[in-house]
Amino acid sequence: MIGRLNHVAIAVPDLKAATAVYRDTLGATVSPEEEQPEHGVSTVFIELPNTKIELLGVLGEGSPIAAFLERNPNGGIHHLCYEVPDIKEARDQLLKEGARVLGSGEPKIGAHGKPVLFLHPKDFCGTLVELEEA
Amino acid sequence: MIGRLNHVAIAVPDLKAATAVYRDTLGATVSPEEEQPEHGVSTVFIELPNTKIELLGVLGEGSPIAAFLERNPNGGIHHLCYEVPDIKEARDQLLKEGARVLGSGEPKIGAHGKPVLFLHPKDFCGTLVELEEA
Repeated sequence: MIGRLNHVAIAVPDLKAATAVYRDTLGATVSPEEEQPEHGVSTVFIELPNTKIELLGVLGEGSPIAAFLERNPNGGIHHLCYEVPDIKEARDQLLKEGARVLGSGEPKIGAHGKPVLFLHPKDFCGTLVELEEA
Repeated sequence: MIGRLNHVAIAVPDLKAATAVYRDTLGATVSPEEEQPEHGVSTVFIELPNTKIELLGVLGEGSPIAAFLERNPNGGIHHLCYEVPDIKEARDQLLKEGARVLGSGEPKIGAHGKPVLFLHPKDFCGTLVELEEA
């Protein structure tokens, strides 16, 4: 079912400082910062030859990464995103296998403009998994 | 400096159960389990089209992932591994930038038979970073 690793998301307390670490210390190519008010985050993408790292900073009140950053004040890896060819087919198969899909179970439009779903960390080795329709 | 994301490592309390999640629930291609006594872990690789997920299970006493699993009993993402063309050149440049290299600072031979180094999580957005000479 799962295909490419679309991205690894890292939540960070200071998006500008984290961007500088990847751009200046690690010498990677970074995208401009983008505010995503409908997702409560600002994003910077680190463009690697085979995949992307998504740096996530808090935007506004009630950001979905605020509680994670309280538990991980230096930042940390927030989720992995795998591509699937058909998100509803993937969801139905996962539910049949007994895996838990977060929220309403209906795909939402994610930060890349494509349908996404999140899966329960306890069912996937303690990692939050995002599925994105490729 | 950094190139491809070589792998994402996930430490898990039960390697066989985690392998089944990736093989059966997520439908991915998994490698046979391999014991790496010199690293204190057993490994299974999930082969994705563009990169790998490395599942790490405890092997023997004093495993380097034992403390992590005590803090994260369901498992969790342990580190990210980026490829670099020359590991000693990368290390020297990172030290010049003020980043901390773990251990003696001398590259060791990692689980793939290539020289590796680990960088301090506090200097890299709260994530443990492995560099591997490509």
